[in-house]
Amino acid sequence: MHGAGDVRIENVPDAALVEPTDAILRVTRACICGSDLWPYASMRPSETGQSMGHEAIGIVEDVGAEVRTLKRGDLVVMPFAISDGTCEFCHEGLQTECVHVVFFGNNGMNGAQAEALRIPYADGTLFKLPVGEDDALMPSLLTLADVLGTGHHAAVAAKVAKGKSVAVVGDGAVGLCGVIAAKRLGAEQIIIMGRHSDRVALAREFGATNVVSERGGEAVERIRELTGGFGTHSVLECVGLNESTETAISIARPGGSVGRVGVPQDAMMPGSQTAFYRNVGVGGGPAPVRAYIEGLLPDILEGRIQPGKVFDRTVGLDDVPDGYRAMAERESIKVMVRP
Amino acid sequence: MHGAGDVRIENVPDAALVEPTDAILRVTRACICGSDLWPYASMRPSETGQSMGHEAIGIVEDVGAEVRTLKRGDLVVMPFAISDGTCEFCHEGLQTECVHVVFFGNNGMNGAQAEALRIPYADGTLFKLPVGEDDALMPSLLTLADVLGTGHHAAVAAKVAKGKSVAVVGDGAVGLCGVIAAKRLGAEQIIIMGRHSDRVALAREFGATNVVSERGGEAVERIRELTGGFGTHSVLECVGLNESTETAISIARPGGSVGRVGVPQDAMMPGSQTAFYRNVGVGGGPAPVRAYIEGLLPDILEGRIQPGKVFDRTVGLDDVPDGYRAMAERESIKVMVRP
Repeated sequence: MHGAGDVRIENVPDAALVEPTDAILRVTRACICGSDLWPYASMRPSETGQSMGHEAIGIVEDVGAEVRTLKRGDLVVMPFAISDGTCEFCHEGLQTECVHVVFFGNNGMNGAQAEALRIPYADGTLFKLPVGEDDALMPSLLTLADVLGTGHHAAVAAKVAKGKSVAVVGDGAVGLCGVIAAKRLGAEQIIIMGRHSDRVALAREFGATNVVSERGGEAVERIRELTGGFGTHSVLECVGLNESTETAISIARPGGSVGRVGVPQDAMMPGSQTAFYRNVGVGGGPAPVRAYIEGLLPDILEGRIQPGKVFDRTVGLDDVPDGYRAMAERESIKVMVRP
Repeated sequence: MHGAGDVRIENVPDAALVEPTDAILRVTRACICGSDLWPYASMRPSETGQSMGHEAIGIVEDVGAEVRTLKRGDLVVMPFAISDGTCEFCHEGLQTECVHVVFFGNNGMNGAQAEALRIPYADGTLFKLPVGEDDALMPSLLTLADVLGTGHHAAVAAKVAKGKSVAVVGDGAVGLCGVIAAKRLGAEQIIIMGRHSDRVALAREFGATNVVSERGGEAVERIRELTGGFGTHSVLECVGLNESTETAISIARPGGSVGRVGVPQDAMMPGSQTAFYRNVGVGGGPAPVRAYIEGLLPDILEGRIQPGKVFDRTVGLDDVPDGYRAMAERESIKVMVRP
């Protein structure tokens, strides 16, 4: 990406091992993320550009001398963040706070919307899959790289539990995966806030019990109506704008929790006093999806959840720019890339 | 209080029962709260004024026909918030979110810096004490009305637990009680941020293991040094200013928690992106001190904690204005009032 709206397919030097803990991943599936739309909307022109993409499944093509758990030919998920697997945060299951964390496709780090890329700390970062390269479950497995784990993280941060009420702010792929996560954790009432008919329909299929298409103050009123006047126990903030965050805080039940996974676009958060006087907690951040794969994978393999349905379009590398356009114009929920 | 700096002692009509669920409390001990200093600093001139005070111990003088658990002559603690004791929030132990909640000494509600006051929902609001009116433990018991329970709430919201590291932002009575609460919950390292020698000394007596007198960026650096580079698991925000909140968020360890009990003075909260990228949760609000009394009381009665030491001055009603002055000028940590 060379600037807002400026996505180009370029030939770059082949990915190569640099550190002995590296692996080279040949990408078999990648995708475009809702968070890629932030720079697509506002990135300043850059001559060097930024290699994009932070979600992938692929085949290990080569490994450095110190890689112990992976070998050439393994099929793996690449979570969106590099983690060394050995620091105290990795041991705590908070790999996105790893002392060596870098997000793929950021700050000059190579991205996965590519034929191949270098994976630092391969043992800590990659997760080996027990299926073949062309398994029918590939779309759902690809969501383990980010959106499913991120929706799950929102639900965990929002303390979703059996019998509780949940509202999901944002009907993108992460919000939709948040619905899956909320249902999986036993929520009784799941309200999706959205106004795109395709997304809302998918949310219902995933387990949403109510749809609220209003925004701002009207949405707050509507959700309080739907919840006996008080709001929901848990709110999943899957957008990142101040308007949506303010709504999220306002629709939480007193004593409830907001789990944020939408990348916040502002340094200041609205609703400080609302959250305080209602004893509403606000948590979340970049999801440690690496930690969540183990728990979520069986539900995919055994068909209990089908997060892969968020992909409604597949493109080759050459059509990635059009994939960005389609997602930005809400023509597509999420675009899969097959290099 | 008739405006900033304008505290007057006035004769008002005697407190009287209005609803059958009311009681009349004769105040034997009240006090001035750090939160009373906000209007003392900035309240607009008002002819009617606001009756002040939200912490008290007293004797039940009269009860309405529907009061079931209290009788004339009972010695009780009056938490700072009215709670009906029957709604779903009261049943959950979140009495400050009671559907009938009102804070004493706010919005025209009568205050406890007085000889007597009316207590709505007396059964739900008041807590009967098992001691005599002049028990030597009276100062510590009085902290159950607000500051001890509020410090405890900050610690609970900040997820303080055995072996964890804790930072306390604010060296007022609530911050000092936060130190007591953190130690009581098993924290291993307790860092008090303060620069008043009397307060810091008391914090050490209560269990603080480190003192940081720096502020802002220097404080963040110092606390990271003291904690192996990462910050503390828990941070108790006991001030309410944006500067202190930003510091609180910045000194939390990645994945850690900030418990806010300082009344936020701004609608916008700083540190939204810092909190997000570090996966730091921010919780808290008005403490349900009514719920906490049962757990904290035995520790006071059996001498394990002595929160009453936060009182370093006692005044009669006539000297309440000077008590405000003394607290505002940091001459006194907390002033007790004996009507």
